[in-house]
Amino acid sequence: MSHKVAHWKDVPEEEVEGAKGLYRRWLISREDGAPNFAMRLFRMAPGGRSAHHSHDWEHEVFVLSGRGRANVGGMTYDLYPGVFLFIPAGVDHSFENVGGEDLLFLCMVPIKGVPPQR
Amino acid sequence: MSHKVAHWKDVPEEEVEGAKGLYRRWLISREDGAPNFAMRLFRMAPGGRSAHHSHDWEHEVFVLSGRGRANVGGMTYDLYPGVFLFIPAGVDHSFENVGGEDLLFLCMVPIKGVPPQR
Repeated sequence: MSHKVAHWKDVPEEEVEGAKGLYRRWLISREDGAPNFAMRLFRMAPGGRSAHHSHDWEHEVFVLSGRGRANVGGMTYDLYPGVFLFIPAGVDHSFENVGGEDLLFLCMVPIKGVPPQR
Repeated sequence: MSHKVAHWKDVPEEEVEGAKGLYRRWLISREDGAPNFAMRLFRMAPGGRSAHHSHDWEHEVFVLSGRGRANVGGMTYDLYPGVFLFIPAGVDHSFENVGGEDLLFLCMVPIKGVPPQR
């Protein structure tokens, strides 16, 4: 298994369907040989928001830059650089960008939450 | 299972044994209910370095701030904000801070690599 080192800006981004102004980069995933969990970087444009939903795998999130708000399990949290979130399987959640610049965050998921082609 | 939201600076840090100037915070781990992988934040002081070693679980690393150098599988890489690394199980690796400020990076590991008490 080969290792991988890169900068996130070198990874192509794709628009996330079912959300507004949300773009995803797969930094480390099954196709890189990751056996247990994947690292994705999300960019949410000003005014963007994700769908409020839940699923049967957890999220581990770390906010890199920008200002946002998260709704997790019916509670509201401010998002700013250095905030991290553990969202267990089955807990409903959504994010929105409430600032004037991109909201950037990492979101790790177990392999169970990674599409077969990633 | 309850969710968790906090800022990394709110988490106590511990010194890493067998390294120089290296401090670890467990942001999300087994004790929070994480079933598959853990998120840790490392602070490496100027002049600091980690032991060159390998183990039978992978690392997924994301550099937050500072300047460093990584040796991974016999190759050398510059570390700066936004660089990420996938280090598979069994690949030898070490990090050093080559700048004048703290080197901060996230390092995720599967539960297999988390001590029982964490």
